[in-house]
Amino acid sequence: MFAPLQNDSFLRACLRQPTEHTPVWLMRQAGRYLPEYRATRAKAGSFMGLATNTDYATEVTLQPLERYALDAAILFSDILTVPDAMGLGLSFALGEGPKFAHPVRDEAAVAKLEVPDMDKLRYVFDAVTSIRKALNGRVPLIGFSGSPWTLACYMVEGAGSDDYRLVKSMLYSRPDLMHRMLAINADAVALYLNAQIEAGAQAVMVFDSWGGVLADGAFQTFSLAYTQRVLRQLKREHEGQRIPHIVFTKGGGLWLEEIAGIEPDVVGLDWTVNLAQARQRIGARVALQGNLDPNVLFAQPDQIRAEVTRSLESFGTPSATSGHIFNLGHGISQHTPPESVSVLVDTVHEVSRRLRRAA
Amino acid sequence: MFAPLQNDSFLRACLRQPTEHTPVWLMRQAGRYLPEYRATRAKAGSFMGLATNTDYATEVTLQPLERYALDAAILFSDILTVPDAMGLGLSFALGEGPKFAHPVRDEAAVAKLEVPDMDKLRYVFDAVTSIRKALNGRVPLIGFSGSPWTLACYMVEGAGSDDYRLVKSMLYSRPDLMHRMLAINADAVALYLNAQIEAGAQAVMVFDSWGGVLADGAFQTFSLAYTQRVLRQLKREHEGQRIPHIVFTKGGGLWLEEIAGIEPDVVGLDWTVNLAQARQRIGARVALQGNLDPNVLFAQPDQIRAEVTRSLESFGTPSATSGHIFNLGHGISQHTPPESVSVLVDTVHEVSRRLRRAA
Repeated sequence: MFAPLQNDSFLRACLRQPTEHTPVWLMRQAGRYLPEYRATRAKAGSFMGLATNTDYATEVTLQPLERYALDAAILFSDILTVPDAMGLGLSFALGEGPKFAHPVRDEAAVAKLEVPDMDKLRYVFDAVTSIRKALNGRVPLIGFSGSPWTLACYMVEGAGSDDYRLVKSMLYSRPDLMHRMLAINADAVALYLNAQIEAGAQAVMVFDSWGGVLADGAFQTFSLAYTQRVLRQLKREHEGQRIPHIVFTKGGGLWLEEIAGIEPDVVGLDWTVNLAQARQRIGARVALQGNLDPNVLFAQPDQIRAEVTRSLESFGTPSATSGHIFNLGHGISQHTPPESVSVLVDTVHEVSRRLRRAA
Repeated sequence: MFAPLQNDSFLRACLRQPTEHTPVWLMRQAGRYLPEYRATRAKAGSFMGLATNTDYATEVTLQPLERYALDAAILFSDILTVPDAMGLGLSFALGEGPKFAHPVRDEAAVAKLEVPDMDKLRYVFDAVTSIRKALNGRVPLIGFSGSPWTLACYMVEGAGSDDYRLVKSMLYSRPDLMHRMLAINADAVALYLNAQIEAGAQAVMVFDSWGGVLADGAFQTFSLAYTQRVLRQLKREHEGQRIPHIVFTKGGGLWLEEIAGIEPDVVGLDWTVNLAQARQRIGARVALQGNLDPNVLFAQPDQIRAEVTRSLESFGTPSATSGHIFNLGHGISQHTPPESVSVLVDTVHEVSRRLRRAA
C-alpha cells in the first residue's frame, strides 16, 4: 500500500539501532514560522479548517520537508482532537491558544464523558493515510496525541492556564472525578493512536505537555499512571514493523527513571535536562529525543552551530546501543527565522557524522 | 533598638539547628487572598502606593500574623524594586503582573544601566525598620529581592512572558550584553539586600523565579553565577546575629547540588521536587524550604491536612543537623480561602511536634 522507506534513521534511532547520523525533526515543524504554512492557513480560514481538511493537512505536513533535510514528518493536527470528539467544542482564535466551548468542571460534566466514537476522528486517520502516501517513503510519519493528564488540563480549564487552579482544585478535592476523566482519556487516546497506526503512522508520540506542572507524587498518580495505561494498550507492531512509542513530559526531568519505567521506546527531554546525565540515568533503556531551547534559533548562524554542536557532543559518542533523536525541547516559535532551521538541521547532520567518524 | 526575638524557630531551622516544631511561613502570605489586605490596598490606590508607604507596608506585612501562627514575617514589597530604582518605571495594572515602561532591549539601553543610588530604595529600608519595630520580637523578618537573572527577564521582556523570547534572544545572540546587565543587577541586589539587613531584616531571600526557564548550561552561566555573585557580597552577620541566606530557584530541581554549591544557608524547593530525595541530595549542607503546591489549599480541610502530613513525613524525622522550613512551592493564590491557611499552619505545627515526639 505504501512505498518502501528510504530514510529510516529516525526509526532506527528510536529503537537504539546504529545510524549514520543523528536524525532530526522539530516539534511543530509544520507551523506559522513558514510563510507557505501561513498561506495555506489563510486559504483554510482557521486552524481546525486546516486540520480537518485532508488535502490541506497533507500539504502543510510536507512543507518543511521541501525546505529542510528533516528525518521525520509529523502529522499536522492538534493534541486536543480527542476531547473535541468528546463534544467539548475545540476552537482556536487567531493568535491565541486552544479553547473549549464546554469545559468539564463538575460531577455532572464528568459523568457525561465517554470514549468518543473514532468515526468522529476519521479526518485525522484520513490525513495520516494521505500524508503517508504523499511522503512516498521519503521519511517516516509520526502520529501523536496529548496525554490523558494534558487533555484533562484543557478539558477542565477550558483553555491554557498559568496556575492550573481549576484542574488542580478538582484533583485535590475530587480525585474520584479526576481518575474517572483520566481513565476515559487514556482509553480514548489508546484507541486514537492505534487507529493512527492502522492508518499509516510509523511511530506515535504522547505529548504530556503539562505533566511538569504537577507536584511530585501527583505526577505519578495523575499523569504517568495514565500515560502507562495508554502505552499498555498500544500496538507495538503493525504489518511486521515495530512502531516506536515516544513519551515527552515537558518539565519531567526529575522523573526520568519513572518515565522510562513505563517502557516507552523514546523519552523526550526539554532543555532543562543535561543530555549526558539523562543518558547516564536512562539511556541504557530508552532512546532520548531533544532538547535544544527553541530560542537558540533567534541567534546568529555561528551561534546556532555552536549550541547544536555542544548539544550533540554532550550526548556523547553514539554506540550501537544508544539512540539520540535531535529535536527542540518544545515546539518551534512562530517568530523563528526559517533560515535558522536550515542551519540547525544541516549542523546536526554534519556534526553527528563527524562525531561518528571520530569515534 | 529592636525587641528580643520570642520565636526563633525559623532562624534556627535555617541554620539546621533543632526546633520544637517545623517553622512555617508562606510566600506572598500578605496578599490579595486576605480581605484586610484588599481593604488596605484600596486605601493605597495601587500596589506601588502600598509598597512605598511605610505605614501601609507595615500594616499589610503584619496582617497574616494576626490570623495565623506563622513563624516568620516577610517584608511586603516586590521582587522588581531594584530595576524600578534604575529608572525602568515599574507599574502594576489591577489584576495584571508587573510592567516596565522602559524595557532594556538593545546595546544603548544596556550601556545606560547602572547600580542605582540606594537612596531611591529608602522606602524599602524604612519599611523594614518600621515592620521590625511593629513585630516587637514576635517572629523574625525576612527581606528579599529578585535574582539578577529574574530581574533581567522582566527588564528585557518589559513584563511577564510565556516563552522569554526577547531575553533569551539577547542571551544567545548578545551574551556580552546579558553578562553586563547581570553583573550590574548582581551588584545592585547585593547592596540592596545588605541595606535591608542593616535596616533590620533577619534573613534574606533571593527569588530566582525564572531560573527554571533556562537551558541546562545557560542556567549555570546566566543565573546561578550571578546569584553567587550576590551571595559573595552579602553580610553573613549583623550585630552579632547570623543572617541566613535563602535561594529559591523555581523549576531548579535538577540543579539542587549546584545551587547548594554556591553556599546559601537554605534552598527553596517547588512542588515538583521530592522532599526526601532533596534531603538526601543536599540536606547535609543546607536547610530546605518548601514545597507544597498552593493549589492544595483549594481542597477540603481533611485533604489539606493529609497533604501537609504527607509532605512533613516525606522530609523524614528531623535531627539536630537537619532543617526544614515548611512553605508553599510558589506564592499563595489570590483565590485561596483564608480558612485553608489556618488548617495548613496548624497542621504543620501539630504534626511536626508529633513526629519529633515519635522520633
